[in-house]
Amino acid sequence: MSSNPLGIGIDFGGTSVKVGVVDGYQVIAQAPPLATPEFDGAPPLIDAIAGTISCLREKHPAIAAIGAGMPGFVDFEHGLVHGLTNVPGWEGIALRDELQQRCNLPAQVENDANAMAYAEWKFGAAAGCHHIVALTLGTGVGGGLIANDRLVRGARSAAGELGQTSIDYRGRKGAYGNLGALDDYIGNNEIAAEAQQAYAKSGEHRSIEDCQPAMLSKAAANGDPVALSIWRGFAEKLSCALLNCCYLLNPEIIVIGGGVAKAGAVLFGPLESHLRDQLGDVFNKHLRVVPARFGNEAGMLGSARIALEEAGLV
Amino acid sequence: MSSNPLGIGIDFGGTSVKVGVVDGYQVIAQAPPLATPEFDGAPPLIDAIAGTISCLREKHPAIAAIGAGMPGFVDFEHGLVHGLTNVPGWEGIALRDELQQRCNLPAQVENDANAMAYAEWKFGAAAGCHHIVALTLGTGVGGGLIANDRLVRGARSAAGELGQTSIDYRGRKGAYGNLGALDDYIGNNEIAAEAQQAYAKSGEHRSIEDCQPAMLSKAAANGDPVALSIWRGFAEKLSCALLNCCYLLNPEIIVIGGGVAKAGAVLFGPLESHLRDQLGDVFNKHLRVVPARFGNEAGMLGSARIALEEAGLV
Repeated sequence: MSSNPLGIGIDFGGTSVKVGVVDGYQVIAQAPPLATPEFDGAPPLIDAIAGTISCLREKHPAIAAIGAGMPGFVDFEHGLVHGLTNVPGWEGIALRDELQQRCNLPAQVENDANAMAYAEWKFGAAAGCHHIVALTLGTGVGGGLIANDRLVRGARSAAGELGQTSIDYRGRKGAYGNLGALDDYIGNNEIAAEAQQAYAKSGEHRSIEDCQPAMLSKAAANGDPVALSIWRGFAEKLSCALLNCCYLLNPEIIVIGGGVAKAGAVLFGPLESHLRDQLGDVFNKHLRVVPARFGNEAGMLGSARIALEEAGLV
Repeated sequence: MSSNPLGIGIDFGGTSVKVGVVDGYQVIAQAPPLATPEFDGAPPLIDAIAGTISCLREKHPAIAAIGAGMPGFVDFEHGLVHGLTNVPGWEGIALRDELQQRCNLPAQVENDANAMAYAEWKFGAAAGCHHIVALTLGTGVGGGLIANDRLVRGARSAAGELGQTSIDYRGRKGAYGNLGALDDYIGNNEIAAEAQQAYAKSGEHRSIEDCQPAMLSKAAANGDPVALSIWRGFAEKLSCALLNCCYLLNPEIIVIGGGVAKAGAVLFGPLESHLRDQLGDVFNKHLRVVPARFGNEAGMLGSARIALEEAGLV
């Protein structure tokens, strides 16, 4: 038996909601995932989450706090979900209070990329660092920043939106009217579409399914010149946004996670070389660029930890 | 007589070094400026600064700490000057210790834009805010960031280099090999050169002196279409870098100072409209964009304050 207080970590996604029991840096139990689109808006889904937590507590009575990692804008201070990417019906939901009331446990809601950054800082690749840029590469680019040993949430918990930062002041118009947003260049869908075009140019027809990042990673590892050039372009664009983070925040470490990070050397190689080539000495010498320690469980680990800390339990 | 402990604030520039006696938000006395280029490297200039401080202390015995605001990379923690923009001979100078030994007072060295941000936060336009982006527009663009009520210095005190952030991932190559650095688009010299070209295109020859930002501000205020378009372009490029700060840090306030900020409405109008048009609601609603309260004295005020605080005197 562990003597640590346990936390509930909720990994909220557009496809599924995963609820796990967290002990330090490990998810020690997980309930069957809830299918997000099957629920008609927030209240029934919150009911189901509360029911799931109740079941988990029967087996794990040491559960003492609930943390939810949400894919979108949350107001950490007030426990509100402003709105979620790809999940309708979640505008202005007081998720923290709803969970607290239904489960009678202290709860917190946090942006999922912030939760991932927190997990990597407390238990993972960035342990012991004070100034951290963490990001997840997937459908979009999520970011979490730590400066002076504190998560940077900003005025309304909206900080860390790396995917909305611009890499071209005259670029494509993005979700908020913003020009050149990184998400619109290196999100999963953009990469797949770009690869499909590049293959077509080289005389090869590929379905969009065969142009997903996982396929492109394999192809690049086998020396496929089209796939390699896609990853080089990816690295060029991502490095611009990360250079901006470096010049603004002078981090000790950049931690890269999310499905696309599995591309490995074909991504990290050109990415690190772009960064090194464009950073002044002071920034360069003290910077490490590393893959995340945790995978999909990072959001659960981080949000559970934040909830336990805020409740004064760890 | 004031009962506050007084600080020395040093405003170190490529043309002159100004040494002032600081009481809270006021410079209550100033020594005659030292002509930077007349000194052969760091040691004689440090001697002259120490001599100046010694004179000021005779009249102001309450002086209790020395803060130096430096135009370049400094290591705050170790009190080192790594190197200064436009001032040769200042690589690897232990300025803090040199000042402490010669003056027998606690001293600190800080980046000048950080010092400006600190002054605006403690006494100026950003008083009471917790998340601040401050910048100075001049020969280059300097930045100072405050998150969670603390100056963001980063791993090696190099944070806040807004002028080195990129607005175009395929842009011009800058000082550190970095592509699209803001400084290379809206520094004083770049603006003047751009204006000269634009006037030439419209059939008017203007000397580079007549294309300086101050002249362009006057011309724009009088409705000169070329000058107006230069400021619109300036606002477009600057807004890109500031949008990146907003999406990364979610600040409550952006404080803009430096000589170029005197352009006033011809700059602030289009700048604010670019920002508002490209920010998501959560970011937009809680953001103010304001001119700095302090002018050239900001560096002295901020660096003196930091030195007094670090010494535990305020």
